[in-house]
Amino acid sequence: MTVRALYLEDLTVGDVWEGGPVTVTEADIVRFAEKFDPQPMHLDPSAAQGRFGGVIASGWHVAALVMRDFVDQKPFGDTPLLGLSVDQLYWLQPVRPGDILSIRREIVAVARSRSKPDRGTVQMRMTVTNQRDEVAMSFLNLIQVPAAPPPSRENS
Amino acid sequence: MTVRALYLEDLTVGDVWEGGPVTVTEADIVRFAEKFDPQPMHLDPSAAQGRFGGVIASGWHVAALVMRDFVDQKPFGDTPLLGLSVDQLYWLQPVRPGDILSIRREIVAVARSRSKPDRGTVQMRMTVTNQRDEVAMSFLNLIQVPAAPPPSRENS
Repeated sequence: MTVRALYLEDLTVGDVWEGGPVTVTEADIVRFAEKFDPQPMHLDPSAAQGRFGGVIASGWHVAALVMRDFVDQKPFGDTPLLGLSVDQLYWLQPVRPGDILSIRREIVAVARSRSKPDRGTVQMRMTVTNQRDEVAMSFLNLIQVPAAPPPSRENS
Repeated sequence: MTVRALYLEDLTVGDVWEGGPVTVTEADIVRFAEKFDPQPMHLDPSAAQGRFGGVIASGWHVAALVMRDFVDQKPFGDTPLLGLSVDQLYWLQPVRPGDILSIRREIVAVARSRSKPDRGTVQMRMTVTNQRDEVAMSFLNLIQVPAAPPPSRENS
């Protein structure tokens, strides 16, 4: 698939993309946890059972799945997705084996850099919802986006 | 290693733990990116070369490495580290192959839940510094921590 790169000028507050579905398996949860978050609640169904009724995904695993879906969906075409910051990230519901996540991305702000007018930022609200329509996670993500190149002098 | 679980009452604003060193390899960067952030700047040394002079780690990979170090360091003993939210997360410097990260964790707030007095929250400022003393990433992490159990009636 060839998708052209989108520039700052192509993106508007209120633009929305719907991502997913992302199905989360117990094997995925345990594999991520073994590498990055080896706590019993993410690793061991019996140890986790008391509190959560089974393993739950590391919150950072859910964030990583959102990133993967972002790359796959290519909402900005071939423009690299370079994250600058995150705010208001909430893990609201545990993500469990078998959960099917959908991810809504909405542009909430677009700003050109004052010091470097060849680029700007887009702030997106990411909302991760499970198959019961519960919001499992949400956050604001500020992403650097290039501005459209100025018209070539040779052509003007 | 046996470490007792720490409770909310054991944790104080200003407590600091120094974590790391975490050495980041190109293989680690590429492996994470293949799974969760398959963009050329994280995957392909030649494609990434123009802008960054080689591959750089996905920001979510750096976050996951901070989590792993948190679990390994056990600053709260055996108390589970259950993240509730993140704010003011900044990716300030690229993380490159060979970088050696240290991670400072400082408690900036401790609060008991009003509605559920058996628990509370600890807010920590996480600061990730590379071997050149540049801050590569920082964020505030709000973590749920159990309060100490009340004295048993049978013993009182």
